[in-house]
Amino acid sequence: MKIGIIGTGVVAQTLGAKLIELGHDVVVGTRDPSKLDDKKMMAGTLREWLAAVSKGGKKGKVATFQEAAAHGELLINATHGQASVEALKLAEADKVGGKVLIDVANLLDFSKGMPPGALASQTNCLAENIQTAFPNLKVVKSLNTVGAPVMVAPQALAGGEHTVFVSGNDAPAKAAVAELLKSFGWKDVLDLGDISSARGPEMYMAMWIRLWGATGTGMINVKVVR
Amino acid sequence: MKIGIIGTGVVAQTLGAKLIELGHDVVVGTRDPSKLDDKKMMAGTLREWLAAVSKGGKKGKVATFQEAAAHGELLINATHGQASVEALKLAEADKVGGKVLIDVANLLDFSKGMPPGALASQTNCLAENIQTAFPNLKVVKSLNTVGAPVMVAPQALAGGEHTVFVSGNDAPAKAAVAELLKSFGWKDVLDLGDISSARGPEMYMAMWIRLWGATGTGMINVKVVR
Repeated sequence: MKIGIIGTGVVAQTLGAKLIELGHDVVVGTRDPSKLDDKKMMAGTLREWLAAVSKGGKKGKVATFQEAAAHGELLINATHGQASVEALKLAEADKVGGKVLIDVANLLDFSKGMPPGALASQTNCLAENIQTAFPNLKVVKSLNTVGAPVMVAPQALAGGEHTVFVSGNDAPAKAAVAELLKSFGWKDVLDLGDISSARGPEMYMAMWIRLWGATGTGMINVKVVR
Repeated sequence: MKIGIIGTGVVAQTLGAKLIELGHDVVVGTRDPSKLDDKKMMAGTLREWLAAVSKGGKKGKVATFQEAAAHGELLINATHGQASVEALKLAEADKVGGKVLIDVANLLDFSKGMPPGALASQTNCLAENIQTAFPNLKVVKSLNTVGAPVMVAPQALAGGEHTVFVSGNDAPAKAAVAELLKSFGWKDVLDLGDISSARGPEMYMAMWIRLWGATGTGMINVKVVR
């Protein structure tokens, strides 16, 4: 599948590498594709990423936000939550038709030091904000509740016996995302409801941050027992 | 142990009954102890509760907020989150010394219909608000992440293989609460850190509400895998 990733940090690079490994045709969109040697947040440069994903005849591509959004049949928002709506505007995501967008980002405040504050609330939910700004897109919130390494290798933690969530207004879009998640190894994909239900996993980020602090590792998640 | 419970709803009644069953000396504090026949939120009247907990020579007591706070060596806040600080003021919790207070309440907004909105945020955390208003108390946030039936019978859900959290500034207070939780059957008690870490479980309530909606049952919790 043709996939366009908006963003270039550790989440974008990790998801992109996994998707390429699985045989997808991935374009990572960045503000300025000529800057391949900038160090990215918690990750290497895009030139290093391009080298790392080139194996067995497979390769990735770095292009503009716009090119990535135009390329993908499926889009992924992996920008900083507070920059997401602006990045998607630069990507002209309003002109790409009714594509599915997986929103994996979080609204985090690093301005007051560590741990960062989770800013999502009943009245400020990133996935809802994106859906409102881009009514053409089929926004599905997912994967924001785990760190990048867990996103693409759930079986590396507790044998994969833990839960990932999907929220969105479009049932076929959620089903498509669930299929993709299963191709990553996810066994328990829980549909929380419409896009307003993304408030749950977004506000949960405040808990994740404290679990991370208490356990000292980002290799954590929750299993919903029911 | 002498335990004073502030509040009379389903959580107060459920915790009170379990504590009496375990042999503790429990006083439930209410605004007006003469009103034993008022129907309580999601629970029966206090007269019915007094009858139900009277068995095998054991019994409970209903008194004023003040009497309950004076009685308990350990206190539990089981009021509505938005009424908690006022209720604790009526209880004169500032005059009871350095007692441990387990805060099990949540800030929930029922004014916009169902599902209720979880109002906790980085700048509005009930446990922190209580600790600030009553610096004498040793506030420990716990149990707010599960419904009343799960609080006192964790083994009834997934064999008890799930997690409960404690947050607070005082290590011995957290240890005492963890002991009490273990007497309820909790196996996995995770210490999240100081009282500011209660933002995690309080904001998680937004997730719990969506899990409840998605699964159709309040017999749910999460197991932290790590």
